[in-house]
Amino acid sequence: MIIKLERIKLQTRKAEEAINITPKVEEIVKASGVKNGLVNVLTSHTSSGLLVTEGIPCLEEDILTHFSRLFPEDENYHHRRYLDYDGRLGFNADAHLKSVLGGISCSFPIENGKIVKGSRQTIYFMEYDGPLERTYLVQVLGE
Amino acid sequence: MIIKLERIKLQTRKAEEAINITPKVEEIVKASGVKNGLVNVLTSHTSSGLLVTEGIPCLEEDILTHFSRLFPEDENYHHRRYLDYDGRLGFNADAHLKSVLGGISCSFPIENGKIVKGSRQTIYFMEYDGPLERTYLVQVLGE
Amino acid sequence: MIIKLERIKLQTRKAEEAINITPKVEEIVKASGVKNGLVNVLTSHTSSGLLVTEGIPCLEEDILTHFSRLFPEDENYHHRRYLDYDGRLGFNADAHLKSVLGGISCSFPIENGKIVKGSRQTIYFMEYDGPLERTYLVQVLGE
Repeated sequence: MIIKLERIKLQTRKAEEAINITPKVEEIVKASGVKNGLVNVLTSHTSSGLLVTEGIPCLEEDILTHFSRLFPEDENYHHRRYLDYDGRLGFNADAHLKSVLGGISCSFPIENGKIVKGSRQTIYFMEYDGPLERTYLVQVLGE
Repeated sequence: MIIKLERIKLQTRKAEEAINITPKVEEIVKASGVKNGLVNVLTSHTSSGLLVTEGIPCLEEDILTHFSRLFPEDENYHHRRYLDYDGRLGFNADAHLKSVLGGISCSFPIENGKIVKGSRQTIYFMEYDGPLERTYLVQVLGE
Repeated sequence: MIIKLERIKLQTRKAEEAINITPKVEEIVKASGVKNGLVNVLTSHTSSGLLVTEGIPCLEEDILTHFSRLFPEDENYHHRRYLDYDGRLGFNADAHLKSVLGGISCSFPIENGKIVKGSRQTIYFMEYDGPLERTYLVQVLGE
């Protein structure tokens, strides 16, 4: 069995942003040597996310806009209070809630060395609390 | 290690529909010969979804009704514009958002040749933009 | 390949509650002997959930509060009707919808015998319809 894990660093540029990471995931799958198996992709942060949708800018905007409609930044969140362990005010409850809403991971099969996914399925790293340096994981498992 | 991947075709009949695919997934797990491992089920489309809930018609209706309440068809979506690559107006932003909301995959353990899941857990293919011919994937991995 | 599956019982104490199960999952991974692979964690119930967010009480409250804002208990649900097979009125549609919204599982890589996750990522069992005795699954797979 081949099991490979890559930690990928990503510098986000905006407060909220959908970044297409499909080419990077495909590159890692190819380099892994796994012919049949699966790939898991996962963010390491609780104020970012990872999701799959069609890869077009208008949809990226719709996701960010309508996630903010459901979880507005200025709601009366419990998390908007002084956090001892951070030495500052919590202010990103909406980012955490969006992360839970859209999810933090995806998993696809690998067949003959290639990810098996629909032609329009695009893997997005979702920044909800940037700009920040972020890390996501790509694990390839198979033979 | 046994790794099997099945592509299942499904003709949906309505604009929105929750289709119980649990028996098909169980059949594929049984045919795979895997005694211990896991099964991943995944839609291949960005305007459909895959989720797990109790298998009763009133809940199927509640999910579709309340997803539409959160993402109404007639919201002012960015995706509602002319799409060059499609040669037509984008009109299904709500379907993409519902797909992200409810998720696109599930994963269960297999033990002694059987899926280990709660007695009320039912695997649903979710059509949000039908009727269409759809494909979902069932991958079985183990030994 | 090592494949281990544990069924963990959990008595919830409130109608709605977020319970940090990270230490238990880490303990099972350690005991499995798997050095490299993955761990899947999954609830067995359709009115509970499983999700990953930062492990602080104010966020636990925000998730429960704002899930209830999106799916209020007193909405006009189809599921609020007499259920023959249960011999009682369905009354927990909101719990099922929250389960779908927040998700029912998570999956992390294992490397050198340890779960690879962000320092703030905390695994939560989410009770939306308690108090009840619940079961969740922890599957470890690797070598």
